[in-house]
Amino acid sequence: MTLRVTVWGENVHEKKHKLVAELYPKGMHGCIADALNADPGIRATTATLDQPEHGLTEAVLAQTDVLTWWGHAAHGQVDDRIVDRVQQRVLQGMGLIVLHSGHHSKIFKRLMGHNCDLVWREAGEKERLWVCNPAHPIAQGLPAWIDIEHEEMYGEPFGIPNPDEVVFLSWFAGGEAFRSGVTYKRGGGKVFYFRPGHETYPTYHQAEVQQVLRNAVKWARPDGQFAWGAPERPVAKSLEPIVEHGGSVH
Amino acid sequence: MTLRVTVWGENVHEKKHKLVAELYPKGMHGCIADALNADPGIRATTATLDQPEHGLTEAVLAQTDVLTWWGHAAHGQVDDRIVDRVQQRVLQGMGLIVLHSGHHSKIFKRLMGHNCDLVWREAGEKERLWVCNPAHPIAQGLPAWIDIEHEEMYGEPFGIPNPDEVVFLSWFAGGEAFRSGVTYKRGGGKVFYFRPGHETYPTYHQAEVQQVLRNAVKWARPDGQFAWGAPERPVAKSLEPIVEHGGSVH
Amino acid sequence: MTLRVTVWGENVHEKKHKLVAELYPKGMHGCIADALNADPGIRATTATLDQPEHGLTEAVLAQTDVLTWWGHAAHGQVDDRIVDRVQQRVLQGMGLIVLHSGHHSKIFKRLMGHNCDLVWREAGEKERLWVCNPAHPIAQGLPAWIDIEHEEMYGEPFGIPNPDEVVFLSWFAGGEAFRSGVTYKRGGGKVFYFRPGHETYPTYHQAEVQQVLRNAVKWARPDGQFAWGAPERPVAKSLEPIVEHGGSVH
Amino acid sequence: MTLRVTVWGENVHEKKHKLVAELYPKGMHGCIADALNADPGIRATTATLDQPEHGLTEAVLAQTDVLTWWGHAAHGQVDDRIVDRVQQRVLQGMGLIVLHSGHHSKIFKRLMGHNCDLVWREAGEKERLWVCNPAHPIAQGLPAWIDIEHEEMYGEPFGIPNPDEVVFLSWFAGGEAFRSGVTYKRGGGKVFYFRPGHETYPTYHQAEVQQVLRNAVKWARPDGQFAWGAPERPVAKSLEPIVEHGGSVH
Repeated sequence: MTLRVTVWGENVHEKKHKLVAELYPKGMHGCIADALNADPGIRATTATLDQPEHGLTEAVLAQTDVLTWWGHAAHGQVDDRIVDRVQQRVLQGMGLIVLHSGHHSKIFKRLMGHNCDLVWREAGEKERLWVCNPAHPIAQGLPAWIDIEHEEMYGEPFGIPNPDEVVFLSWFAGGEAFRSGVTYKRGGGKVFYFRPGHETYPTYHQAEVQQVLRNAVKWARPDGQFAWGAPERPVAKSLEPIVEHGGSVH
Repeated sequence: MTLRVTVWGENVHEKKHKLVAELYPKGMHGCIADALNADPGIRATTATLDQPEHGLTEAVLAQTDVLTWWGHAAHGQVDDRIVDRVQQRVLQGMGLIVLHSGHHSKIFKRLMGHNCDLVWREAGEKERLWVCNPAHPIAQGLPAWIDIEHEEMYGEPFGIPNPDEVVFLSWFAGGEAFRSGVTYKRGGGKVFYFRPGHETYPTYHQAEVQQVLRNAVKWARPDGQFAWGAPERPVAKSLEPIVEHGGSVH
Repeated sequence: MTLRVTVWGENVHEKKHKLVAELYPKGMHGCIADALNADPGIRATTATLDQPEHGLTEAVLAQTDVLTWWGHAAHGQVDDRIVDRVQQRVLQGMGLIVLHSGHHSKIFKRLMGHNCDLVWREAGEKERLWVCNPAHPIAQGLPAWIDIEHEEMYGEPFGIPNPDEVVFLSWFAGGEAFRSGVTYKRGGGKVFYFRPGHETYPTYHQAEVQQVLRNAVKWARPDGQFAWGAPERPVAKSLEPIVEHGGSVH
Repeated sequence: MTLRVTVWGENVHEKKHKLVAELYPKGMHGCIADALNADPGIRATTATLDQPEHGLTEAVLAQTDVLTWWGHAAHGQVDDRIVDRVQQRVLQGMGLIVLHSGHHSKIFKRLMGHNCDLVWREAGEKERLWVCNPAHPIAQGLPAWIDIEHEEMYGEPFGIPNPDEVVFLSWFAGGEAFRSGVTYKRGGGKVFYFRPGHETYPTYHQAEVQQVLRNAVKWARPDGQFAWGAPERPVAKSLEPIVEHGGSVH
């Protein structure tokens, strides 16, 4: 069954900065969607900040199995009501792939319950990603490591809850190491954070990185759906006989 | 070294409902603070919703090692700025004990990234808490199980991230089971959710429950403090020699 | 692609005890295999203790995606070399479903690093399994709870490492609660422990239990394979230029 | 209360290789014990492979709060009965700190349920350890990173179960990254693996490394003790009234 992915892009740098526009003529989101659509089992469409409801209407999310999120300059412009909506869909089962500077997005901080802070340096240095568990679905088809010639550095401490699994570690030429691929479960939704993807480098054009993206959305496919809630199961419907006792403030 | 605990109470039911006022003449927070102060190593004070800044000023939190939280009727009245402040202190290292209906408090949902939904029934039925790991610090001095004669029922599914450790399971006379004591780490802060404590029953007067509260605040004592942030480590300060490459949008 | 499951059964009680033989004329393993084969995407075969190499030859395991394990009376008769072999296959990627009294099997204790002790009572009392996360793949197609009229009781403390996820909790008529469905990852292999299935009750004939078994083997399907090892990456092949320094005892 | 630590050393290289003997004239275990005893709250003694029962008699372990373990050349010579004994003590509550090549020790593999494989290179290259969570007790008093001028390299994939927390990451001059400080819980026992400490370098003489060792043993102090077991709770002692039903093979 076709996996329906919505690729969300902030689409700010692409319009303001010639450098980024030249690297990503269809937008970073366009490049990511193309990489995903190279797999016949995936159908990726895009949504951007400047669209009504940021392109993430109820209808769009209802038809989304996995959402990918790239943002950097305009995290604060994302409407809290849309963040609420995305969070609820994740808890119900939708997968979420958070990319690079999306570590400081409202939706990632919301789901983590954390500040998601980190140390950074924009110097176009070499990054090498190591696969920690080659049997992990997100690592399928990858070599033992991926070299990215020019990337921004992210360093520890990374302010996140302890991940379910660390899939990638990064080594940086400038001397840092980082937990670059980490997985979480939130309700029915699987969440994966993937570090690389600074806007001034051609990272999302690199074949191994595109393989990670395809693996990640497949891994995050919903296994089931559940609409949470806080229902009462009253005495009359209790499964074992009980006698009501005591008062109530209700 | 004395452990400084701030016991936060919503203090709404105690003022509105005679039943609750009679059970807890000093307020539920007063009863909890007394239980903690029975240990000479703990110095517990109280704070309530109706105080300025809900009693949780910067100065108060700076002197708080562990915060306990009971709320039910007025979660929505808690100022988001105070929630932000408490969250930051937890990430820095402060312990947090969330009690009973505090599962739906803003601060717990914030730290969990989840809805924290559950099923419920207010019938004063019997609850039995089983200790899952008798070697856990929160279980010290407890018997293999604790019977509470009259409690509200909380049932699964409980909408929380997978806990670090499940310390207690509950069995209810009406037929349900529940993860009643669960631990988390958020930054430097240890978080413990403990299920029992409905306002219309004398739960916090029970000796074993008081023992859990004392154990929990001791377990949550900060091991260290860290002020998170997202500093740049520029090329000039990189630990290994690198040559800057590529452009920037900054 | 067809999922290849090997259903391992101790097959001791079935031969010694009329009661068990009547409940499971094809053996417990036969009943479990039939339940799995009801799904056209699964092809389940069986293996038993009394076969050469317990039916778990290198060739059989090489063709096994997921292994299920039921044992009780003869854990000690399982050859350590076969346990080693199964462990290595799990680490490489094979899924493992451990059933009921398999909690004390050599392979489960080996993978857990724990004693896997628990409290028990054989009284044919009612067990009710609660689903903790209805969006979990192992819970698909199930109601909110499953009643099993007659089962052995297992109670806490259950001596296991903290699970990745608790999928089911049990409520017992005699007053206990238990973590009855727990998941782990070991290398590439997914491990699920499922509590019900005492030999003197018809548990594996029950439709909801069979649904759990089918869900579990599908969930445990290998995502990838990896042959672990401890290779040297010598100086001559180091990815960054380094100069060898210091002595060696080799 | 004084923390009682037993420092276990294989003590093979020290006797065979002049290089190691000169670096560690009191043995590696002697150096580690001295580092621990620099804290007045710790009383560290040593035990070695060549002693009767490897120095780990029932009496010694009964008086040990935390055990540290360094081995490399003679893992296979450690008696399985002593491994069983140490494992049981850990499950009961004793802390365990596994150092460097101890990753392949019987006791670490036993507790992990894994092969604990990794990639390695002995070139005396630079290792830099990054602190992932500066508020963690094992990171107290440390700078943001620790440089070790000459160390053996360990690289991913590291064959371990997903840790509870990754406290340190290593960056190596030769281009690798590694999860160098990881925590686990097994029963009542806290387990910490710490990567540095190759026998041909003076690692355990370095002040920051000694600080990690002191922090680690304090972190691993038992919170409680529990003697596991698998007791029956028979019908006559069930907490709720039940009627026995069905047969038994016992």
